[in-house]
Amino acid sequence: MNLFESTVATISPLDEQAMATASTYIDSLLKPVGSLGVIEKNAIKLAGISGNLETDLTNKTIMVMCGDHGAAAKISSFPQAVSTLVAETMLSGISGVAVLAKHAGARLCVVDLGLVGEISNPAHINRKIALGTADFTEGPAMSRHDAIRAIEIGIETTMEAISEGANILGTGEVGIGNTGVSSAILAALNCGDIESLTGRGAGHTDEGLSLKRSMISRALAVNNPEVTDPIDVLAKVGGFEIAGLVGVYLAAAAQRIPVVIDGFIAGAAAVVAYKINPLARDFMFASHKSEEPGSMAIAKILELEPILAMNMRLGEGTGAALAFHLIEASTAMMKSMGTFADIGM
Amino acid sequence: MNLFESTVATISPLDEQAMATASTYIDSLLKPVGSLGVIEKNAIKLAGISGNLETDLTNKTIMVMCGDHGAAAKISSFPQAVSTLVAETMLSGISGVAVLAKHAGARLCVVDLGLVGEISNPAHINRKIALGTADFTEGPAMSRHDAIRAIEIGIETTMEAISEGANILGTGEVGIGNTGVSSAILAALNCGDIESLTGRGAGHTDEGLSLKRSMISRALAVNNPEVTDPIDVLAKVGGFEIAGLVGVYLAAAAQRIPVVIDGFIAGAAAVVAYKINPLARDFMFASHKSEEPGSMAIAKILELEPILAMNMRLGEGTGAALAFHLIEASTAMMKSMGTFADIGM
Repeated sequence: MNLFESTVATISPLDEQAMATASTYIDSLLKPVGSLGVIEKNAIKLAGISGNLETDLTNKTIMVMCGDHGAAAKISSFPQAVSTLVAETMLSGISGVAVLAKHAGARLCVVDLGLVGEISNPAHINRKIALGTADFTEGPAMSRHDAIRAIEIGIETTMEAISEGANILGTGEVGIGNTGVSSAILAALNCGDIESLTGRGAGHTDEGLSLKRSMISRALAVNNPEVTDPIDVLAKVGGFEIAGLVGVYLAAAAQRIPVVIDGFIAGAAAVVAYKINPLARDFMFASHKSEEPGSMAIAKILELEPILAMNMRLGEGTGAALAFHLIEASTAMMKSMGTFADIGM
Repeated sequence: MNLFESTVATISPLDEQAMATASTYIDSLLKPVGSLGVIEKNAIKLAGISGNLETDLTNKTIMVMCGDHGAAAKISSFPQAVSTLVAETMLSGISGVAVLAKHAGARLCVVDLGLVGEISNPAHINRKIALGTADFTEGPAMSRHDAIRAIEIGIETTMEAISEGANILGTGEVGIGNTGVSSAILAALNCGDIESLTGRGAGHTDEGLSLKRSMISRALAVNNPEVTDPIDVLAKVGGFEIAGLVGVYLAAAAQRIPVVIDGFIAGAAAVVAYKINPLARDFMFASHKSEEPGSMAIAKILELEPILAMNMRLGEGTGAALAFHLIEASTAMMKSMGTFADIGM
């Protein structure tokens, strides 16, 4: 087995016994049963992941996967070169996710899997496979081999982050054109029609949106990805950074570390990971309801309800960064709330 | 003028000039225009409150107003004595809001305006007006004089907290029966019908819910509060802790300090403050979408959309505590994000 296959095979279910123990304990806490809603649900899920009543989430890392898209000019309102620029601003601490990660006490791990430009900041991880994918409106974006290689880079870098102490992960991405690519992936996986899955991305006009939809439609027609084979879908109409994120989810699940889905693009990658191994879903946490229309399809498929409604559509990992504090609230509850027994009731 | 009147008269509009400057600056930041959604909107509002591009929100305080209700036995599934117990658990750091406030780096300010019991922990502020309100199904809950007195206690304690450094406030409350009281206030202010405004509170059965609704209906019939006079509504069918929260909102607005609404009860108090002086609304921030059905009516009246959807219904200030991190993200954005000019574009 290669690393991809062995990682997929390692993923095992949540610890039902730990979840039952957590649930009983939560009902003994000083509050009406169920009144802390998602904080309680997440605490039970975290117990299922870690096997313990309290899950330490103090070491937060956002895995930011970066790659360019051959079809960028056809599906995006920004030029390809902006991707590398965005990655640079992350590394210098001035991009959206850099600022929100710092606010959340999280570190960023920025991985170049296939940007057309070179990141100058040495703090990034260079695992470049190629200078962007091929144009998916004319043929496959990647070979199957490269798609698996990109997944494995996601797995390897995530396992490194975990070995360095990360105990909760977030997902983020950089790649001009990747909202369109994500819509194509979801459409290829029968998650909805192109119309309902495709939005304005970073700022399309009506005309741009219409062109984006027709290009996605052409990519699907040209490549004819196999709906039952998520790797085929990823290779033909996906991207390096999205494949890398698939690896992040698979590694997190295999290593039993909670992982927070950012927005639409990170969500499309989460759906691919779920299609590869449905158990991977149990280690994922939704963050925000993105402005991209396809994000609702993702929530429905994964059965993971976003907890934040802030009308954001920046990507990068900004939603995941904001959600950390809310997910860690479950640990605070388990650690510090009193029980009825504590007050003699 | 008394303190209540002078506070109401002090409230002035948001600083439009500062908001315009903030808006222009935000559009120069490294992101597609508008892509940080509510983080951007809140940053503009905070500029309107403070008059500055960056608003320091590091000193967080949740004002927890406590009081009991004469009709508790008729509208709640818990006995009155539980209120004092809950206040004690807050002060000893083991209640829901105590734990989430600590998680958020916020302090609690617990004020007894009218509990039937005595809080033993000396860390609370004792401003008891009476041992609970009168039973509103038989006559007014409070005299008009006491309602204004309770508002003024909210104003005084909030001004103290601000003078001690608080630069963002949250609202919280304790008072068995106060979801029913909040429904009565909203119904009296023509915010909807009793059916749609009344939910299960801390855990009513179908029968309990039905009784609660009929008791609210009786309270309105017996007292006939004047819809155009929010103080009359507050006195006749409100409570000491809700009046105290009205004072918190008015003082926050008068002192130009942002204030975060918790859930349903704190929201009902926010509506009363808004009816007293509509400008007070501009200093308020919504936190979570409470499970209480009436919370949607509050969002609509105040035109403040909740940013958290976590199915919570504990009250105490738990929703406000969780929202601090998200509101402070606006300050992080203003302080640390780079501009296109910074990278020579």
